[in-house]
Amino acid sequence: MRTVVVTDPPRADAEDAAALGKYGVATVHEALGRVGYLGPQLRPAWPGARAGGTAVTVVCWPGDNLMIHVAVEQCRPGDVLVVTTTSPSTDGLFGELFATALAQRGVRGVVLDCGVRDVAELREMGFPAWSRAVSAQGSVKATPGAVNVPVVVGGQVVHPGDVVLGDDDGVAVVPRADVGRALAAAAARVEKEDATRAAFRDGELGLDRYGLRERLSGLGIEYVTQAEYEGGPR
Amino acid sequence: MRTVVVTDPPRADAEDAAALGKYGVATVHEALGRVGYLGPQLRPAWPGARAGGTAVTVVCWPGDNLMIHVAVEQCRPGDVLVVTTTSPSTDGLFGELFATALAQRGVRGVVLDCGVRDVAELREMGFPAWSRAVSAQGSVKATPGAVNVPVVVGGQVVHPGDVVLGDDDGVAVVPRADVGRALAAAAARVEKEDATRAAFRDGELGLDRYGLRERLSGLGIEYVTQAEYEGGPR
Amino acid sequence: MRTVVVTDPPRADAEDAAALGKYGVATVHEALGRVGYLGPQLRPAWPGARAGGTAVTVVCWPGDNLMIHVAVEQCRPGDVLVVTTTSPSTDGLFGELFATALAQRGVRGVVLDCGVRDVAELREMGFPAWSRAVSAQGSVKATPGAVNVPVVVGGQVVHPGDVVLGDDDGVAVVPRADVGRALAAAAARVEKEDATRAAFRDGELGLDRYGLRERLSGLGIEYVTQAEYEGGPR
Amino acid sequence: MRTVVVTDPPRADAEDAAALGKYGVATVHEALGRVGYLGPQLRPAWPGARAGGTAVTVVCWPGDNLMIHVAVEQCRPGDVLVVTTTSPSTDGLFGELFATALAQRGVRGVVLDCGVRDVAELREMGFPAWSRAVSAQGSVKATPGAVNVPVVVGGQVVHPGDVVLGDDDGVAVVPRADVGRALAAAAARVEKEDATRAAFRDGELGLDRYGLRERLSGLGIEYVTQAEYEGGPR
Amino acid sequence: MRTVVVTDPPRADAEDAAALGKYGVATVHEALGRVGYLGPQLRPAWPGARAGGTAVTVVCWPGDNLMIHVAVEQCRPGDVLVVTTTSPSTDGLFGELFATALAQRGVRGVVLDCGVRDVAELREMGFPAWSRAVSAQGSVKATPGAVNVPVVVGGQVVHPGDVVLGDDDGVAVVPRADVGRALAAAAARVEKEDATRAAFRDGELGLDRYGLRERLSGLGIEYVTQAEYEGGPR
Amino acid sequence: MRTVVVTDPPRADAEDAAALGKYGVATVHEALGRVGYLGPQLRPAWPGARAGGTAVTVVCWPGDNLMIHVAVEQCRPGDVLVVTTTSPSTDGLFGELFATALAQRGVRGVVLDCGVRDVAELREMGFPAWSRAVSAQGSVKATPGAVNVPVVVGGQVVHPGDVVLGDDDGVAVVPRADVGRALAAAAARVEKEDATRAAFRDGELGLDRYGLRERLSGLGIEYVTQAEYEGGPR
Repeated sequence: MRTVVVTDPPRADAEDAAALGKYGVATVHEALGRVGYLGPQLRPAWPGARAGGTAVTVVCWPGDNLMIHVAVEQCRPGDVLVVTTTSPSTDGLFGELFATALAQRGVRGVVLDCGVRDVAELREMGFPAWSRAVSAQGSVKATPGAVNVPVVVGGQVVHPGDVVLGDDDGVAVVPRADVGRALAAAAARVEKEDATRAAFRDGELGLDRYGLRERLSGLGIEYVTQAEYEGGPR
Repeated sequence: MRTVVVTDPPRADAEDAAALGKYGVATVHEALGRVGYLGPQLRPAWPGARAGGTAVTVVCWPGDNLMIHVAVEQCRPGDVLVVTTTSPSTDGLFGELFATALAQRGVRGVVLDCGVRDVAELREMGFPAWSRAVSAQGSVKATPGAVNVPVVVGGQVVHPGDVVLGDDDGVAVVPRADVGRALAAAAARVEKEDATRAAFRDGELGLDRYGLRERLSGLGIEYVTQAEYEGGPR
Repeated sequence: MRTVVVTDPPRADAEDAAALGKYGVATVHEALGRVGYLGPQLRPAWPGARAGGTAVTVVCWPGDNLMIHVAVEQCRPGDVLVVTTTSPSTDGLFGELFATALAQRGVRGVVLDCGVRDVAELREMGFPAWSRAVSAQGSVKATPGAVNVPVVVGGQVVHPGDVVLGDDDGVAVVPRADVGRALAAAAARVEKEDATRAAFRDGELGLDRYGLRERLSGLGIEYVTQAEYEGGPR
Repeated sequence: MRTVVVTDPPRADAEDAAALGKYGVATVHEALGRVGYLGPQLRPAWPGARAGGTAVTVVCWPGDNLMIHVAVEQCRPGDVLVVTTTSPSTDGLFGELFATALAQRGVRGVVLDCGVRDVAELREMGFPAWSRAVSAQGSVKATPGAVNVPVVVGGQVVHPGDVVLGDDDGVAVVPRADVGRALAAAAARVEKEDATRAAFRDGELGLDRYGLRERLSGLGIEYVTQAEYEGGPR
Repeated sequence: MRTVVVTDPPRADAEDAAALGKYGVATVHEALGRVGYLGPQLRPAWPGARAGGTAVTVVCWPGDNLMIHVAVEQCRPGDVLVVTTTSPSTDGLFGELFATALAQRGVRGVVLDCGVRDVAELREMGFPAWSRAVSAQGSVKATPGAVNVPVVVGGQVVHPGDVVLGDDDGVAVVPRADVGRALAAAAARVEKEDATRAAFRDGELGLDRYGLRERLSGLGIEYVTQAEYEGGPR
Repeated sequence: MRTVVVTDPPRADAEDAAALGKYGVATVHEALGRVGYLGPQLRPAWPGARAGGTAVTVVCWPGDNLMIHVAVEQCRPGDVLVVTTTSPSTDGLFGELFATALAQRGVRGVVLDCGVRDVAELREMGFPAWSRAVSAQGSVKATPGAVNVPVVVGGQVVHPGDVVLGDDDGVAVVPRADVGRALAAAAARVEKEDATRAAFRDGELGLDRYGLRERLSGLGIEYVTQAEYEGGPR
């Protein structure tokens, strides 16, 4: 691994990132064509956490948070810190002291593909955090890693400067080049979903609204009564 | 798999289902002889969720929610939707639009042996949901499955029309034919537990209340002091 | 296994145990030199649970809570019950009736390396519980085990009488002989963290406060611009 | 749970069961319409194990093999023992002494939704076994269960007398009523696969053999060069 | 953690350790009263591996094998190396170069509560290894740990000098003080099992040999026909 | 997701890929600076499997192998197929018929971040396969995906044309641009390891060979006798 700190990655616009955060993970993921979701293993440290910002990425050795200290200095207002480890680890590399330092710099949250600790304090501070585990296990500061290089979390590549957003459903990434498209598509999707929601409240069925009925027979789906089913062949 | 929609499965009584839901999962599971629990992998999407209803069952292909659209039409007031996949999957096949459609039809909740999404919205709506995972991962509508056939969740068979109930402890099923017995046994158990709770509050021990002391010596359990233990043979 | 109940294990001081509980898991774990954490698999049954007490230990057969009944009698005010099974199990060996009996005896909480149930009731009672799973699965009372022998949870040995503390970050153990040292070290650590927190709020960096900058170059970490990185050797 | 031993369940034909075992798990699963596979968690205790027989089912308490002793007496030549536990367990409920007793009775193998032990001895004996885990953890004989009632393994219901077959790919079940259909469909599938294998060896593509090319364009799949991809819109 | 190397722990007799290794994991675990099994997560790197020796224990930081280098010097003929990490890790801390060094010193095998690599080479060398994972992930040598302090693997405490034995069923530990008892009990158990095996080959049932029939009725187990079961109450 | 098939990705040299395959996963991973390992979840379908080739990448919907049929046509001699799914799945998307088709085209193996089936047949054919699971679960051909786009497996990005190599330790990727460097570094590493192996066989210690002794005292590691340890402070 190249042990390097990239000091000035281009970033997506911080306001755009906040706007995507408000649309939320499911909406943005769908709007982009069902891509960019970082998977169900990342859970918020407290319910209701929500954020959208520009990624500052960190690669740590398991059980070692040296590079998070390095990364703090690279953070700017509007960023979200994204921390990975070189191999699977649940150790709590991040807690409320780091959150204090980041909040002071205008950072909007943290995503940890490892563990978080001080969950009660983070909840009180209202500092958003997503992680693979909650763990009080402490860290050393011995082994080098990298800051602001591309990283992989949950099967998705996150480049520094990409938009990262999180809510109760987990975390998603939007590549910097796709932010404009994501904003437009999310707005369109919200409008469409508002209409669908209203229709569903009025009792319309998805089968009709989405034109699915013809597909069902094409797929060979039969409607039978309970009696027919029990008699039934196959 | 027979790709079929059974349109009129007989259902347990909706009021009975609500009553079992109020007794709660642990009580009903115990009352029936420690059967029918769907396992610890199913967790509520929000704390405090509670429901009891009659099962409408769905079999989906992983990552495909076509059959949930089909199932919505089969739902009646008092139902609980139970969704399985043909192989293990965490994808979020269900979100707030489906919840809106189901709530409109008087459905009381959903159990997903896969993922759920829009957790914040479900919590706000107060729509009860239990699932194996929270995941924003989106779905297609391409592959047929089945509605209202027997399904297996957590090692338990759920037939359409059975009572399904959930709370903070997870989800349980009561076969339609056992509902009367379950209601009576749950009532008896609650009465017994109320008496036990009062006794425990007064300082009585389970060892005495349940007559366990004689069993202990029959099982060869010795009482020793710390000093005896440390000196001790075996 | 020696099927034995040790009746009078020496205990750490109950007030000291409460004081360590207030310091919290991460602080005490760090203060002792990053030892004693029982791992990320133990989660609180409800957010905000917090306790510190002296361990009464229990070894149960999976799916069998006979020995918890035996252990209740051994509990005194200030204790925390620590329950293990002889092999991995998620069954809910403990619920609100046990909690009622323990609360009556002044017990401060329970740690279960298996499952817990009646989560809603425990939350209402405010009775702290940590467990590996939430499960309504019921228990028998058939097979002997042990009370107040050393047990292992999450790779840590817990002796009866040790201090066990829990919060939103999980659970930690402090050996009885280390309680004095733990109290002193935790107090020192809190003082130091208070100063660090204040410094971070003023914008000081961890890199400077902990003197890490020289270490970085010793470890071969380079600072490069994005342009340099992309051109970059390696 | 009803603690019962059913003594004379009707069984599928033992020769048919052997024949299905020779077709193998993947072939029979596909032939029946992609149903009946007991999931990837069941692995053979030794590579090359293969068997097909009629199910004798057992429900055990975790860590308790009393009911396997009961089940041995119910076994006949051509049977396969199928063991489940009332909650998840990895304990090794079965080893070479049981295998000796079963082999003496003409039993063809064992499927354990828990643990197996004496793996080296089973391999030497050539006694086929599939399990969720390998574990030397010993058992008690204290808690009742059931023999020859319907059980669930890997999301599939196994009735006593059904055909159970296993190989290096895992285990499948064929309901007794479907055995004739399964034999015919498996024979047809093998014939078709033989032809496909020969065609593939001659260089024919699945795209052509299965007529998939038209489907691709209907699904909107584009073929592009690397240069087009990199320039590419989306 | 105390970062210490204990240079001269007393060891069990090496011949006794070898003898226990020959009895095997399941037999010794049972002979001691069903204790000392290190759990199903530890698997042999190659089938047929078998060893018994005296433990040299190592505590490593995750992803760091510095302390294994330290431990090699402490190893003597007849030892088995037992490696743990301070938090869960699958990294391959051990490979064929270490095995070469250990074989040269007469070490009989390695147990890793983390990952192993060079599996093909270990199999060729015939060097026994058990681990939680196979992983090629490389290590650093940066963070201190300990050698020959008590460690915990799979919920069992291993003291330096204890006997550790492994085979296809996993790994077990016998405390140094219990070795004599273990040898006698294992010999007795083997004798008993030989007789049982012969009896089972002759068709005797465990129900009769272990006198279990009376227990069954005491537990309320009924024998019913299929017809009675289907009609059946409860 | 862009549903696209890239028809002509540039590939690394097939001979170079074979050479890297011979060096093996651990050696190449280390030689490149401990990068490129696809993680311990990927296991060979049969022991002794070994391969090195150029990646043809596939993205499938879970439970759907349509895109593998598309990918076969894109394969050339010297390739290795790398299959991912859009969300976690264990389904057996690949078996012996695909292996037959690939072998006919000179493909050297397959890596599946999902399941494989027909394990016995693959072993007989000697066709190398690595996968996350073994599963007989069958597939549909309904939903589009992509071929020869960058994919992520085990936290590593695999581009089409990269070298992918596998052995008993798992799978590694070498970016096309790094192949020359990898070959040189692997050769150097093998040479160094040969010398180390010889030295270890002669009894030299890693502590001396790697100059680690001074580091130990710098890290505060003490050497103590058992007596000192037991008396010991901390």
